[in-house]
Amino acid sequence: MAKILTLTLNPALDLTVRLPRLEAGQVNRSDEMHSHAAGKGVNVAQVLADLGHQLTVSGFLGEENLQAFENLFARRGFVDAFIRVPGETRSNIKLAEHDGRITDINGPGPVVGAVAQQALLDRLVQIAPGHDAVVVAGSLPRGVSAQWLRELIERLNGLGLKVALDTSGEALRTAIKANPWLIKPNAEELADALGCDVLSHEAQAQAASRLHAQGVEHVVISHGAEGVSWFAVGAALHATPPKVSVASTVGAGDSLLAGMLHGLLSADTPEQTLRTATAIAALAVTQIGFGIHDAARLAPLEQGVRVRPLTEQ
Amino acid sequence: MAKILTLTLNPALDLTVRLPRLEAGQVNRSDEMHSHAAGKGVNVAQVLADLGHQLTVSGFLGEENLQAFENLFARRGFVDAFIRVPGETRSNIKLAEHDGRITDINGPGPVVGAVAQQALLDRLVQIAPGHDAVVVAGSLPRGVSAQWLRELIERLNGLGLKVALDTSGEALRTAIKANPWLIKPNAEELADALGCDVLSHEAQAQAASRLHAQGVEHVVISHGAEGVSWFAVGAALHATPPKVSVASTVGAGDSLLAGMLHGLLSADTPEQTLRTATAIAALAVTQIGFGIHDAARLAPLEQGVRVRPLTEQ
Repeated sequence: MAKILTLTLNPALDLTVRLPRLEAGQVNRSDEMHSHAAGKGVNVAQVLADLGHQLTVSGFLGEENLQAFENLFARRGFVDAFIRVPGETRSNIKLAEHDGRITDINGPGPVVGAVAQQALLDRLVQIAPGHDAVVVAGSLPRGVSAQWLRELIERLNGLGLKVALDTSGEALRTAIKANPWLIKPNAEELADALGCDVLSHEAQAQAASRLHAQGVEHVVISHGAEGVSWFAVGAALHATPPKVSVASTVGAGDSLLAGMLHGLLSADTPEQTLRTATAIAALAVTQIGFGIHDAARLAPLEQGVRVRPLTEQ
Repeated sequence: MAKILTLTLNPALDLTVRLPRLEAGQVNRSDEMHSHAAGKGVNVAQVLADLGHQLTVSGFLGEENLQAFENLFARRGFVDAFIRVPGETRSNIKLAEHDGRITDINGPGPVVGAVAQQALLDRLVQIAPGHDAVVVAGSLPRGVSAQWLRELIERLNGLGLKVALDTSGEALRTAIKANPWLIKPNAEELADALGCDVLSHEAQAQAASRLHAQGVEHVVISHGAEGVSWFAVGAALHATPPKVSVASTVGAGDSLLAGMLHGLLSADTPEQTLRTATAIAALAVTQIGFGIHDAARLAPLEQGVRVRPLTEQ
């Protein structure tokens, strides 16, 4: 089993609120409300832990609402290397009405200043060596620039670490220049990062080749229900998941990333790596929430995944 | 200065969310979000602390989101005698749009079982003696009956304690039979507690006399901007606050109750007690939030309060 560090620079406290009907301007009563620690790196860590790996988690946490995070880390046995910053970690509120309508309200989160940014870099230099891979996932908090993210990845690369990056927009566009070991954009995010409106399948393959030449070894492109394209140096595969009934797509991308790391770090064959990763993402979609709570449910999903070589490569 | 215990049986984590406009069914971005520990008894405690009193706070707290409460209690120097219960203390979400529209979404809170109820009674028997008064404020959590509240007050009465009760509905209707030392309903709450549709001023005075005869010494009836009527045994006063510009009425009733306790426990004259209490409530109305952050603002408000005897008595 591998030892993996995940970085969540902008975590969130997810607050799910169920209510009969949202009446704006009124006093509404919720019949169910619960909060849980979230953020892409934290989610990836949980799926990797389900797969038996050893986790260290880091990034920035607002010091005023730590409890849900600290409880989760303690419960899962994660090494907590988060830097505490003044203020509250943002809350992402999901208002779920009985008729299925969902309203999201996403908070701004704390401003992360230069001192905290330096503290994280210093902490990583100390703790990152010895990990088999580092996942950097999610958006950037206020105060943190895409250029800083690029430097952080260069620093991790300099320590000889494999860095898997899952972000989007300006952060992806800039940080991709640091040549992370693996990226996992969806098709739109990759097009955006490369300055294109859309990327055809051919153009994706060409982009992957350019990224390989530049030093990015693995380009994993998610296409939602249509599956995943994986361009490694010298191999390109596409996986189509089995049809599943969708309960929630929350955490599906994080599950895919965790599954890819699992296979790559366990030295599974490329075909098996992609098959399992795709099945883990499909499993996430069938659940409210995500994670591998019942490993027996994974095998039939794996069998339903169709993996084929991408001939464009 | 007095030593006061406040009980909040159903506290809340208030989450204030500012956003340009609430679009139902969409992903909304909030430009400001902050949470703070609240609940009537907790609010009353804060105003009493501002007035220089020594506080113990108790009630039930969900063990999964304690941090905001524990931070507040530590910061204010409150003795924390809350019983921890499984689950999360309810969140009360206030969505404040830029145009001023407010949407509230109030959570259900934890179910408080028999073991926790007994634990609180046991704790109170230990810690309540020695306090100059006990405030019981706010609604009841799920699992706690109005009858239990009545017994709790009887228990406190049995310990020789002055109990101030601020609740409404079935809880007030039942617990009033325990003869708390002071009650502070608004006119509608009192009417409801007595089984009336409305209570005229005359009927309020008559109701207060009956309550005095029964053993309730102080009946404080709040009328919002129209002021406060206070029926003590042998004295009845009405106070009209000065006109103020309303920023938020949150905590105004809690401020009034804190002010009344302050005057009664400091042995101020009735006229001064009611004048100061009314001014503290008016000060709360001028602020987002409440509390006496600048004592210099209180004196001019006190001067603007008009106190007159209630001739109906």
